[in-house]
Amino acid sequence: MSVVVTGSIAFDDIVTDHGCMKDAPGGSALYFSVAASLFAPVLLVGVVGDDFPEDVLAFLRSRGVNTESVKVVSGGKTFRWGGQYETDMNKRQTTNLELNVFADFIPVLADECRHTDYVFLGNINPELQLQVIDQMISPRFIGADTIECYIADKTDILKEVLQKVTMMMINDEEAMLLTGKRSIVTAAHAMLEFGPQFVVVKKGEHGSLLVSRDEMFIIPAYPVDRVIDPTGAGDTYAGGTFGYIAREDSIDFRTIRRALVYGGIVASFTVEDFSINRLKSLDIAEVETRMSRFREMVSF
Amino acid sequence: MSVVVTGSIAFDDIVTDHGCMKDAPGGSALYFSVAASLFAPVLLVGVVGDDFPEDVLAFLRSRGVNTESVKVVSGGKTFRWGGQYETDMNKRQTTNLELNVFADFIPVLADECRHTDYVFLGNINPELQLQVIDQMISPRFIGADTIECYIADKTDILKEVLQKVTMMMINDEEAMLLTGKRSIVTAAHAMLEFGPQFVVVKKGEHGSLLVSRDEMFIIPAYPVDRVIDPTGAGDTYAGGTFGYIAREDSIDFRTIRRALVYGGIVASFTVEDFSINRLKSLDIAEVETRMSRFREMVSF
Repeated sequence: MSVVVTGSIAFDDIVTDHGCMKDAPGGSALYFSVAASLFAPVLLVGVVGDDFPEDVLAFLRSRGVNTESVKVVSGGKTFRWGGQYETDMNKRQTTNLELNVFADFIPVLADECRHTDYVFLGNINPELQLQVIDQMISPRFIGADTIECYIADKTDILKEVLQKVTMMMINDEEAMLLTGKRSIVTAAHAMLEFGPQFVVVKKGEHGSLLVSRDEMFIIPAYPVDRVIDPTGAGDTYAGGTFGYIAREDSIDFRTIRRALVYGGIVASFTVEDFSINRLKSLDIAEVETRMSRFREMVSF
Repeated sequence: MSVVVTGSIAFDDIVTDHGCMKDAPGGSALYFSVAASLFAPVLLVGVVGDDFPEDVLAFLRSRGVNTESVKVVSGGKTFRWGGQYETDMNKRQTTNLELNVFADFIPVLADECRHTDYVFLGNINPELQLQVIDQMISPRFIGADTIECYIADKTDILKEVLQKVTMMMINDEEAMLLTGKRSIVTAAHAMLEFGPQFVVVKKGEHGSLLVSRDEMFIIPAYPVDRVIDPTGAGDTYAGGTFGYIAREDSIDFRTIRRALVYGGIVASFTVEDFSINRLKSLDIAEVETRMSRFREMVSF
């Protein structure tokens, strides 16, 4: 089965302790697509300016990503994000944000997208997330992410999104901000009250936690020797997860657990280089090798 | 088999967001003993003043802790530590430190202690740790912990300790400080160079990482709804670990993995109340129940 994703497609300007990269292809939907395409066909819904390199879109297509719903705005400039990471890479400052063509973006889903079972809403304006949900005919499993600014500025609309989402994936600090809870476990459970059947709280290099009303699953992160650039880790975590779910075409708790582990493995590759550089050469065999190693690392 | 532990026995004055407790029985060796005694007999080596409550020592004895090597200094005052935790309980400030009877403490091991196979050196002055090691006849498995001040002020003696220790258990920040590495994985591996066969890097609520030259084991922490007081979590983690190892009387990698999981489970109870309050009523059946739940929580 396929998976639909909407979110940003961007140029990132990134600075970490290990170097910097300007005009790096990025954005939540781009990262998600590359990761998900390791497992299943992807339908990408987004917008770019005509400054966006055609070879990146061509690469996506070569990986089974349908880019027909990527609108190219003639004369427009692609969304741009700049970020600087501290030595503790769990912390970063946004140094630049230019919405550009994203400012007027209205997602319009092609028929093929609307009939898809699996859909993920990257961390964009919750109004856009709602518009995508409303166009879906009978989605089976809807995932979403968000970021701090929407929790603060668009709380009510975000809560509407949460009511319609099957699985929310959110950072630890954001989960605590949204719920007012001070521990990850209580924040995760409090988030279930907003509507989602599953909540995944992401803790970066410390892994994540999945809760439903009846179950809890702890997912450690695959230990990476050297994190070069954490950008896109969360998006590829979601991408690997939803790609796997779509491939298995199953949404039982066991499949979702496995999917999250696969997602985490894909994310562990993402951070080993800037932008999508490491992901470009990544194949499913490498993912499976690291998956076996991970299984060994957590067994007792 | 028995396990010998040396370290501090203390009065703690603790402030957390959930309240405060003065004159709380604490100290690395005390916490360790209570935890280890769930699994195996413990021989406790330490010092207190005659202000230390006899009923705490009596409780230890009731749990199978031999307190014959706990020196009671007549007219002396027990070691005292004061700590204040931030809302993020991974961070704390030491608000008070009175060595008192600990200032002149020279550990003298009874014959029974010297012939024991398993020994743990709590986070005391590495000179004292060395003195204990030197008195052991033929120890099979030596564990140790340390804290930041000894890494900074007693680096050379600490490195001597590390050469003689089988398993070092250390916080993430301390491991990075000692090795100059910026990631937990590289710091853990760098620490192996100092001599230990096993290095456990502790990440508090995020679990821990065990490395040897050939293997790696990721141990997530048992998710606790509400951390009341994190004091002693690391010490009871070590206590549960070494108690289990002593009970199984085995030091293969599989036993050590299991031991660390048990240690983590015991620590998850420790933080649910101030001081040793929760541990006082804890029995092995409760530990096993949480262990089964944990197994379910990490399986995929």
